[in-house]
Amino acid sequence: MAKDKKKKTPRPRAETPRGFSDTFGADVIERREMLDRICEVYHRYGFDPLESPAVETLDALGKYLPDIDRPHEGVFAWQDDDDTWLGLRYDLTAPLARVVAQHRLALPNPYRRYAVGPVWRNEKPGPGRFRQFYQCDADTVGAATVAADAEICMMLADALEAGGIARGDYIVRINNRKVLNGVMEEIGLWDPANPEAHAHTRGIVLRAIDKLDRLGPVGVRALLGLGRKDESGDFTKGAELSTEQTERVMGFVEAGAGSDGGLTLKAEPVGFTSSVQDVRLRGPDGLDTGSILSDLRSLVGSSAVGREGVGELEMIAELIDAQGYSNRAVIDPSVVRGLAYYTGPVYEAELTFQVTGDDGQRRQFGSVAGGGRYDDLVKRFTGQAVPATGISIGVDRLLAALREIGRAGQAEATGPVVILTMDRDRMAAYQTICAELRNNGVRAEVFLGGGNMGKQLKYADKRASPIAVIEGADERAEGVVTLKDLALGARLAAEIETHAEWKAQPAQITVPRADLVAEVRRMLARAGD
Amino acid sequence: MAKDKKKKTPRPRAETPRGFSDTFGADVIERREMLDRICEVYHRYGFDPLESPAVETLDALGKYLPDIDRPHEGVFAWQDDDDTWLGLRYDLTAPLARVVAQHRLALPNPYRRYAVGPVWRNEKPGPGRFRQFYQCDADTVGAATVAADAEICMMLADALEAGGIARGDYIVRINNRKVLNGVMEEIGLWDPANPEAHAHTRGIVLRAIDKLDRLGPVGVRALLGLGRKDESGDFTKGAELSTEQTERVMGFVEAGAGSDGGLTLKAEPVGFTSSVQDVRLRGPDGLDTGSILSDLRSLVGSSAVGREGVGELEMIAELIDAQGYSNRAVIDPSVVRGLAYYTGPVYEAELTFQVTGDDGQRRQFGSVAGGGRYDDLVKRFTGQAVPATGISIGVDRLLAALREIGRAGQAEATGPVVILTMDRDRMAAYQTICAELRNNGVRAEVFLGGGNMGKQLKYADKRASPIAVIEGADERAEGVVTLKDLALGARLAAEIETHAEWKAQPAQITVPRADLVAEVRRMLARAGD
Repeated sequence: MAKDKKKKTPRPRAETPRGFSDTFGADVIERREMLDRICEVYHRYGFDPLESPAVETLDALGKYLPDIDRPHEGVFAWQDDDDTWLGLRYDLTAPLARVVAQHRLALPNPYRRYAVGPVWRNEKPGPGRFRQFYQCDADTVGAATVAADAEICMMLADALEAGGIARGDYIVRINNRKVLNGVMEEIGLWDPANPEAHAHTRGIVLRAIDKLDRLGPVGVRALLGLGRKDESGDFTKGAELSTEQTERVMGFVEAGAGSDGGLTLKAEPVGFTSSVQDVRLRGPDGLDTGSILSDLRSLVGSSAVGREGVGELEMIAELIDAQGYSNRAVIDPSVVRGLAYYTGPVYEAELTFQVTGDDGQRRQFGSVAGGGRYDDLVKRFTGQAVPATGISIGVDRLLAALREIGRAGQAEATGPVVILTMDRDRMAAYQTICAELRNNGVRAEVFLGGGNMGKQLKYADKRASPIAVIEGADERAEGVVTLKDLALGARLAAEIETHAEWKAQPAQITVPRADLVAEVRRMLARAGD
Repeated sequence: MAKDKKKKTPRPRAETPRGFSDTFGADVIERREMLDRICEVYHRYGFDPLESPAVETLDALGKYLPDIDRPHEGVFAWQDDDDTWLGLRYDLTAPLARVVAQHRLALPNPYRRYAVGPVWRNEKPGPGRFRQFYQCDADTVGAATVAADAEICMMLADALEAGGIARGDYIVRINNRKVLNGVMEEIGLWDPANPEAHAHTRGIVLRAIDKLDRLGPVGVRALLGLGRKDESGDFTKGAELSTEQTERVMGFVEAGAGSDGGLTLKAEPVGFTSSVQDVRLRGPDGLDTGSILSDLRSLVGSSAVGREGVGELEMIAELIDAQGYSNRAVIDPSVVRGLAYYTGPVYEAELTFQVTGDDGQRRQFGSVAGGGRYDDLVKRFTGQAVPATGISIGVDRLLAALREIGRAGQAEATGPVVILTMDRDRMAAYQTICAELRNNGVRAEVFLGGGNMGKQLKYADKRASPIAVIEGADERAEGVVTLKDLALGARLAAEIETHAEWKAQPAQITVPRADLVAEVRRMLARAGD
């Protein structure tokens, strides 16, 4: 019976699940090489690698995805056979908090760790929006001083440059949630004695500011006020602040921007390159750290937390300046970050060049990394506050950026040397040729499929093989092999007009069998020129 | 209301879920370096990397876990919001079959690919038995010739040596399911015209043979007959073969072993080292390939599939011999592999030295890799058979083996140089010292925690830091820094008896600030001697 039923089962569909994708060959190598270079920076800064499992208990993961009210929305979850709810990690920070709480006695304090790996989000997939993607994080746990934040921001700059982004093509923007809390206190939305009060309204304000890039000051003002209707007609309820409250918040966001209209000027183009419009954020030059800090100091008024926040930003700015990073990392009050768990400094790295979107519009590439201080995540487990700060690089976005500006393809684009199978009975001899090449460091393989020489050469072509090695009966009788220079052949095919010219070109040579390895290496060296 | 409720929520437990674990520092580096070396071999053989997602539809994954009757037992699974069942991959082979079916027009044919990554099994965890572990696979899809199988077996030998296993400490054992099918045909358990018939009985036979290492010939005979009661008293029902059938199967398993009692002799010790009892499988020396093949040929009698299988083993043996691998890869009829989907050659790599188990017993380390030919996996999706063969290395078992024989710890055991924080107001100066060291390729960090010098030195010790850099007020006034050679200090502490001697040793020196980098590099170079 079971068998009959089985026969009726339709064939499974050969498809990745919605929102998941495969990564092939050179793309895998490219990502690995970029991550290796970034992790080398983390390592040099004294950070140690950590690999936590993909699966955590939902309890341990907590409810920290942005913009989500329903519990555990956004997490792939299932129930274990002992009824424990398990889920796939949605970032690398929640697992770190669990690790620190679990292993705190064994770990050094402070604990500097880096981690690389996929994370999963149970969200609606879309173009370029996947449900599995890589993050590459570095965090310092146990250091209360904002020197740790300053270090992380400078390391982020070094990591982006190691990853392939040129200095001048990115900016690390730094803000402090405490300053925002100070502004909130000044407008009656934060009470140090009762931190839970007005939390809902503060959440709306936070998310509104976070949308500044997308909606502009007018849109943000609407969301701080009664609300905003978007292009589709959907209405988002606002924070219902008074005009005075709203202007105070906008003053914070636009602190230091002076009378020139604030952040909208940030995307002012200052130059062009052939394919990428070169736009600089006004950050390092256009905004003056001193005037930002003085604006902020007056905005937070007498709020203790606000003054503390401004002081921290000042110290971070000094440390960054002392190491000569002030042209790469700047104080910018418009950065707030979406996540609810940040308690102090927050950072964001943006790429400042423009790219052409699918819709043909030019836009700034935008954020590729972010982070901040989260002093309460470990406390969830232990009851004791543990200071912690860190960054997360969006690996796939950074890779996409490198591809946009043509700085990715450092991965080997050349396939293996292919030894053609002229005579199936001579397989051992072909494998010997192949082994000789491999033992001399040449990537090589014997063609193991079916088909005539034409089909085999087509295969070699698809593999981007530089050389085909041919030892047929004639060659064997004469003790020679024929080497077909496929890379040269392809170049010649593009250049040569007549058949006679083609014939005269040395895209194919015959050499003594004993000279095989030397000759292949000579051809590969020439192709690499 | 929601807030009150929240306050009553108990703290989450800081624990990995059952059967999952964290990997720290040097262990992460060790694994990565081993995998890099193995993948370099795969790459040199012409294999391309592939990264498929952790999540697949259950339909695509199929039901291929060994020893499992219930659908999808052993897979972590949940329902997507469009009701599709999703699951975490349990190996890297099922996803490869899906990838090939999905992308077959874009992929070269044959397609050689390698893949590294975690897989998940929803099984009962136990000591050393985790629900997430790494595999490192290489497969050739689209090559029907057993030259592909021979190549994979030789590559596996190269990969194990690149991974750190010395020649002579491992053996790749090769068999062919077709030969077993031939024997089954001879004893009436396989009908080429009706391959489904007797499938259940054949499954029992397969699993019984697979337990030879553990149960010995007597236990396997019991499972081929009426059944077997284990030490706990549990009874496993047998295949209920007749004595004649049983002896024919055992003849297959012990083919070529002659009259010396067969495979039980395999663990015969031939030598000792200090910590690892050096036991060689009789494979390359004790078993003669010619006599094995001739035994098999008579056992399969007139079965067409059986004869085909023996012919394939013969060709594999010839190719392996031609490349000089016959001392590392041998024909061994006792290998069957648990998985149901194999259709031809099967392989297994075993480590042949003995280790001491948790129970104090000496035992052979055993299998670290396996694989075989599975010509029907892609067919599930497309209806068209696609020949495929490959291996999977059990990464964590291989790492455990390297640790057992003391060949793992190649990962950097030294932590960063630590710059002590003598004066919190001088943070920028300490970060400058640190940056100078890093820019000269020295791994370094500023201590960012709280505490006096003793606590900071204790931290440096926990970090296995080679040098502590001290610039207090006195040093600063004199334009010098003090370098504490912690590595030397630790060595001296172990050697020196008296306090006077201790004082006289140069474990701490003071150098001009300008000579800092040169002096640190000199000390590190000396420590590396």
